[in-house]
Amino acid sequence: MARISFLLFLFSLLTFQAAEAHSVSHQFSPTTPNMIFMLMDDMGWGDLGVYGHPVKETPNLDKMALEGMLLPDFYSANPLCSPSRAAMLTGRLPIRNGFYTTNAHARNAYTPQDIVGGIPDSEILYPELLQKNGYATMIIGKWHLGQQTHYHPLKHGFDEFFGSTNCHFGPFDGKEQPNMPVYRNATMAGRYYQDFPINHKTGESNLTVEYTQEAIKFINKNAANKKPFFLYWTPDATHTPLFASKDFLGTSQRGLYGDAVKELDYSVGQILDTLKTLGIDKDTLVIFSSDNGGATYAKESGGSNSPFLCGKETTFEGGMREPTIAWWPGTIQPGQVSHQLGSLMDWYSTALDLAGISEPSDRIIDGISLAPLFKKGQETNRTIFYYRGNEMMAVRNGLYKAHYWTWTNSLEEFNEGTDFCPGEVINNVTTHDQVNNTAQPVLFHLGRDPGEKYPIKHNSAEYKNAMDVITPIVDDHHKTMIAGNPQLNYCDKAVMNWAPPGCDKLNDCLPIPPSNKQLCTWVH
Amino acid sequence: MARISFLLFLFSLLTFQAAEAHSVSHQFSPTTPNMIFMLMDDMGWGDLGVYGHPVKETPNLDKMALEGMLLPDFYSANPLCSPSRAAMLTGRLPIRNGFYTTNAHARNAYTPQDIVGGIPDSEILYPELLQKNGYATMIIGKWHLGQQTHYHPLKHGFDEFFGSTNCHFGPFDGKEQPNMPVYRNATMAGRYYQDFPINHKTGESNLTVEYTQEAIKFINKNAANKKPFFLYWTPDATHTPLFASKDFLGTSQRGLYGDAVKELDYSVGQILDTLKTLGIDKDTLVIFSSDNGGATYAKESGGSNSPFLCGKETTFEGGMREPTIAWWPGTIQPGQVSHQLGSLMDWYSTALDLAGISEPSDRIIDGISLAPLFKKGQETNRTIFYYRGNEMMAVRNGLYKAHYWTWTNSLEEFNEGTDFCPGEVINNVTTHDQVNNTAQPVLFHLGRDPGEKYPIKHNSAEYKNAMDVITPIVDDHHKTMIAGNPQLNYCDKAVMNWAPPGCDKLNDCLPIPPSNKQLCTWVH
Repeated sequence: MARISFLLFLFSLLTFQAAEAHSVSHQFSPTTPNMIFMLMDDMGWGDLGVYGHPVKETPNLDKMALEGMLLPDFYSANPLCSPSRAAMLTGRLPIRNGFYTTNAHARNAYTPQDIVGGIPDSEILYPELLQKNGYATMIIGKWHLGQQTHYHPLKHGFDEFFGSTNCHFGPFDGKEQPNMPVYRNATMAGRYYQDFPINHKTGESNLTVEYTQEAIKFINKNAANKKPFFLYWTPDATHTPLFASKDFLGTSQRGLYGDAVKELDYSVGQILDTLKTLGIDKDTLVIFSSDNGGATYAKESGGSNSPFLCGKETTFEGGMREPTIAWWPGTIQPGQVSHQLGSLMDWYSTALDLAGISEPSDRIIDGISLAPLFKKGQETNRTIFYYRGNEMMAVRNGLYKAHYWTWTNSLEEFNEGTDFCPGEVINNVTTHDQVNNTAQPVLFHLGRDPGEKYPIKHNSAEYKNAMDVITPIVDDHHKTMIAGNPQLNYCDKAVMNWAPPGCDKLNDCLPIPPSNKQLCTWVH
Repeated sequence: MARISFLLFLFSLLTFQAAEAHSVSHQFSPTTPNMIFMLMDDMGWGDLGVYGHPVKETPNLDKMALEGMLLPDFYSANPLCSPSRAAMLTGRLPIRNGFYTTNAHARNAYTPQDIVGGIPDSEILYPELLQKNGYATMIIGKWHLGQQTHYHPLKHGFDEFFGSTNCHFGPFDGKEQPNMPVYRNATMAGRYYQDFPINHKTGESNLTVEYTQEAIKFINKNAANKKPFFLYWTPDATHTPLFASKDFLGTSQRGLYGDAVKELDYSVGQILDTLKTLGIDKDTLVIFSSDNGGATYAKESGGSNSPFLCGKETTFEGGMREPTIAWWPGTIQPGQVSHQLGSLMDWYSTALDLAGISEPSDRIIDGISLAPLFKKGQETNRTIFYYRGNEMMAVRNGLYKAHYWTWTNSLEEFNEGTDFCPGEVINNVTTHDQVNNTAQPVLFHLGRDPGEKYPIKHNSAEYKNAMDVITPIVDDHHKTMIAGNPQLNYCDKAVMNWAPPGCDKLNDCLPIPPSNKQLCTWVH
């Protein structure tokens, strides 16, 4: 029988209360806390026990939620990894920060290793501002904001980097494509499959262990130095090809995907325990979320978005609702649930607010600070915009969601076996054509109908009332939109990771083929 | 912001621990505890916060789960109310206890008010045995085991009854059909819509309030008398037509269905608080569950079975997986999750076991005692059988589920708008024909695939290994099956609630039409 170590948890809370009573001196000013933002890869809203997965295999995350705040109405800014991550770090929608394509209408684009673009220097990432204000900053895991050297994390606000600029796809033969590099700061530490093995047959890889050890090392070091820190911890074990370390393989009821989730849950527990052991838990805000919805197209190897419609790549709830928890003992009161409409872009404004740094005034920031929510339970009215590439597909305000465009993927791709909504068919909603509903958006009430199954009748008073609120918000959004220079239009084999910095020391530089820059093909 | 009163909960646990330390004397022997079995009506697995509903509006049930044991793999014995309830009270599958029909193959049948049959005298209900062994017994809410007088609860083991023999359908004109009676013990206290109002327009009804007050009265009375008690508390606010009392109307994000859930959650809190206040919480086992899956055909007025397939009336997981919690402070350790395959029929064996009563030895009992699980965390290997009427449709053993027959409803009924699987289409699974897969059952792994979307390939080793275990279990099940006399074959207008006992005192006896007994029509 799986037991959540509830009593242990109870005692830990008691200990925590006792500590408070003794009023131990804080290491840092409580107004500039440490921050650890944990972003999972393709994990679905329904993957955690506390979010209702029937296997209930995430005791550490469930406990984190009980000790902190659950945010069931929290969204990514995009249903795909790179744009979602770019939006999270810039506080701006991908259409503003350039992480989109104009090659075709409403296409999801990302940063494969032949992408020419990346995060523009003109974008200000919040780690840059934290760094300038005395924070030690580190990213552990997947960067995904461009693999060319000038796009690297150390050029954009991070003191340290352990992880990869790209996905862990492969293995490649080094001729058609090189294997992706894993970096230690500015230089390559090795490559996936060669130096950082992932066994496709068994699913075994030690990467989550290493990412966890790195996190604990970084925390320990900065706690010892009494330096406030920002850690962006973003392991990718739940992105196909899935992996887990030996200790977790075969332990989940869910197969390899579940093994990966269990290991990440364990790692979160390790990291939170480190903070407690160091006595800096009350000085540290930890947020957990995911970059987009579960990859339903991966079938049993993908995450669960239950009870939401479809998954990754789509602008239905399954594509962008994220399993989010905020934890900050002593500041965030335990056991809370907030239906604040949240966005990963809020991490930007929240981080700056908590660090006492002003937001850039020369650009629109789409995030809002969640500090008032965390500190005082104060909620803010706001709108969520759902984009695919260059198109605003849908909008949520309150409990209403209006689809201006509907699309899953083309019938051609679907017939070839790529299904973003397995087993789900909602007429006029899960369409295989790009359907323009701008004249009369398809409207859902997400309270009564979280699965987006029952469109509200166009001739109803409810429809009129809801659209009377949403229409001016959308009009204003379009009117004030200044789209960024699209970064994801061009691909070139020459920009692949043939010879990353440091390859010479590892004797692993591959010849760079001649440049052949062309428009990337984005199929959905 | 909705706040789970977590600190309150924490303090209550502390109080409880302190009480234990003082070793207060128990009112009853801990080997014969009080029992309160709470059975909801059409509530879905996914309706509770703790089971992942995104609105998270069930703080009392979530707290009950934290203080007790969550059972995510718990089933009803049937996807429809009457057979499910009959199975729960007899510990036997409906095919054994007679709560099925042979009028057509694999049809769900129940007890509308023109049903001739009901619970046979030959069946031994566990309240009968508890009653004989000194327990005070009461049912509050929906009986549904037959409306003719000889089938009534007071004839089958209950000292007291407040509620109805039937569903709260109506209002009726008293000509084609009479309104259903609400009973106080053996006599009618009034009728729905006339004396116990349900406002279809507003959804207002005070019934849940009354059912809760009755429960608290019963508990108080028996605590004062120092008599062990068994309460079967089965309110029906989540069965259409939905209702809630004034205080809860309009309070849920989910609309009226959510209002009903919130009120039931509040009531559960009231009942548990009563036990605590009386100091008998540690002497009382409370189990919460539902009679079948959420009524997906009711669309936004039905419960959520997320992440499971289809709903009520079907033998997919959505039809029979139930939101189950067991609570018994001091005996069931808090914060547990058990994946024990459970069945409502286990309440039979568990009740007798805890009361120290032997099970009848002259018949097969399908339940198992969960006492070893509750007391020592000891799990038992067992099989779940999924029936529709006279047909075994599916079987679960371990994490494997084999569908011997698949069916939702007829294409004709579906085309007329009755959809048991809204928005869900799984080829060769959610079939509109009754498909006989007995030669090669459709097999799912419910760990990797709780939504029953990805049948395991017939030619795989996994399929062979799983079926090697399941086949002999099914063979044995069929070989030893002695089907009961089907109770749900005949309908007769004359047996309707025209003149229930006590109608004369209320001046509400209606003329009984001539008998016209005929085969009932069961469409799905």
